[in-house]
Amino acid sequence: MAPIRTQWTRLIRFVAAETNQIHLGEPVDSGLDVGLAFSQRKPVKAYEILGSAIDPAAQVTKNVLTVKELLAPLARHEVGGVVRCLGLNYADHAAEAGLKLPEVPVIFYKPPTSLIGPGALVTIPTVAQPPHEHLPDYEVELVIVIGKAAKDVSEAEALDYVLGYTGANDVSFRKLQMSAGGGQWSFSKSFDNTNPLGPCIVAASAIPDPQRIPLKCIVNGQTLQDGSTASQIFNVRQTVAYLSKGTTLPPGSLILTGTPKGVGFVKKPALFLKGGDYMSVWLGNGIGTLANLVVEEEAPLKAKL
Amino acid sequence: MAPIRTQWTRLIRFVAAETNQIHLGEPVDSGLDVGLAFSQRKPVKAYEILGSAIDPAAQVTKNVLTVKELLAPLARHEVGGVVRCLGLNYADHAAEAGLKLPEVPVIFYKPPTSLIGPGALVTIPTVAQPPHEHLPDYEVELVIVIGKAAKDVSEAEALDYVLGYTGANDVSFRKLQMSAGGGQWSFSKSFDNTNPLGPCIVAASAIPDPQRIPLKCIVNGQTLQDGSTASQIFNVRQTVAYLSKGTTLPPGSLILTGTPKGVGFVKKPALFLKGGDYMSVWLGNGIGTLANLVVEEEAPLKAKL
Repeated sequence: MAPIRTQWTRLIRFVAAETNQIHLGEPVDSGLDVGLAFSQRKPVKAYEILGSAIDPAAQVTKNVLTVKELLAPLARHEVGGVVRCLGLNYADHAAEAGLKLPEVPVIFYKPPTSLIGPGALVTIPTVAQPPHEHLPDYEVELVIVIGKAAKDVSEAEALDYVLGYTGANDVSFRKLQMSAGGGQWSFSKSFDNTNPLGPCIVAASAIPDPQRIPLKCIVNGQTLQDGSTASQIFNVRQTVAYLSKGTTLPPGSLILTGTPKGVGFVKKPALFLKGGDYMSVWLGNGIGTLANLVVEEEAPLKAKL
Repeated sequence: MAPIRTQWTRLIRFVAAETNQIHLGEPVDSGLDVGLAFSQRKPVKAYEILGSAIDPAAQVTKNVLTVKELLAPLARHEVGGVVRCLGLNYADHAAEAGLKLPEVPVIFYKPPTSLIGPGALVTIPTVAQPPHEHLPDYEVELVIVIGKAAKDVSEAEALDYVLGYTGANDVSFRKLQMSAGGGQWSFSKSFDNTNPLGPCIVAASAIPDPQRIPLKCIVNGQTLQDGSTASQIFNVRQTVAYLSKGTTLPPGSLILTGTPKGVGFVKKPALFLKGGDYMSVWLGNGIGTLANLVVEEEAPLKAKL
């Protein structure tokens, strides 16, 4: 086994102004925070990548395209079925929540329909709006992107299965999570269009130590989370090895690795998301900014009948 | 809205002896338990169905094919991402487990890689074998198959989104389920090749009342579960409506609706599955028998290095 090598260092997926079609690309400006530039409507240029995001043989061309709309770096059908997530994986977050450290990873899943890209609207569904207030909360997370099918891999070889890393905002509905459904978390974290992903995948080869990635969440200009993957309880090697036990992680699988301290529900007073809030999560090492506006979904007409 | 109408009454997916390819079909003998016949290596003939299982316009032809291998009625890529499951959904099972009735559905998810068809081997992965005994257990379940995208549907209209019904055996690893991972169940129920599905989908139009379906689980010839969907806490209408809250259920979505009393872990003494056990789950109303042998996966060579 050997680490996955890709021609690209940072991969984005976008609609090009020139073609109005979806392409993959490598940002021309290697130092640019692509997600931040896109959120500010600044021009972003990218070298077109030919092939699939999860095929390490994808080729970076010299063809330059203009980003019209930045998308999640993987399409929903490319993520291999379930989106895997760790809960309570930062010592500082477990402490603020008053929960003891887990002995093995706390795992829940989401459906791909929860995924959206940079700039897309995070929707609070009608079921989670008053009078059934479900207390939506933000969570910045490092995401592992699996590049080749992994099953029963050891911690020593786990990083050889990682294509790269991206960011996510694991928007969580705390009331449903904490007090309903027998304590099972998955449903409360899986509403349509509630999980921003991106803005780019940074190749694993460009992040030799994934346990030194800073990550933040900023809501309405206020920095609410400011941590580092150094505080993870189960590191990336351990997480991939554990999740692959008896279980194939197909190429394209996403693993959200938990969130550091600073989430809204433990604040005094508690702070929950509402329509009009503007959230940015940011991760270092070239991943960058994933900014999304929160909106409240309007009741569909049929619900009024 | 109106109920989904299909040309077929019972749909199977199979490799045909004549073509060695995968086809859909309607059993020629409308009274035959297709899964039982296949498990006994008796001949099964089917009229070829052209089109997709989840397209109500699929056409039943007069072309007769011979079943060489019976498969799960939907392929893994057709189930829309996550497989949705209810826990603790039978009053008699909640009673035997000493747990109080849930106020809202208890929901967990599985990846499509857990799904296998009739006759395929249920594998106990190396991680769940001694000395890390994970206590595998059987669970017969009625499965709802969604036929058109459902989101925020009412209980009154919920059945209009159901394509049909099939069966499943939600093999569960109790130690991991009950005592690890912060009480989240999904991972313990999602090992590769542990969730038999089938044998056929019976059209919703042929099962006007899904709350009167008998269901059984028989292990090594002994009937261990013998119940009825009449004992469900959340019925099919309630389940579809609840799961669709804020969440799109794509066509092909599977919902496992929980298991009646009789599971192994509550027996005295407890009864767990082991390699060599032969399990049959059976559901009435034409669904039939889903029989699978349990094997213990051998440690892959690399795990010994």
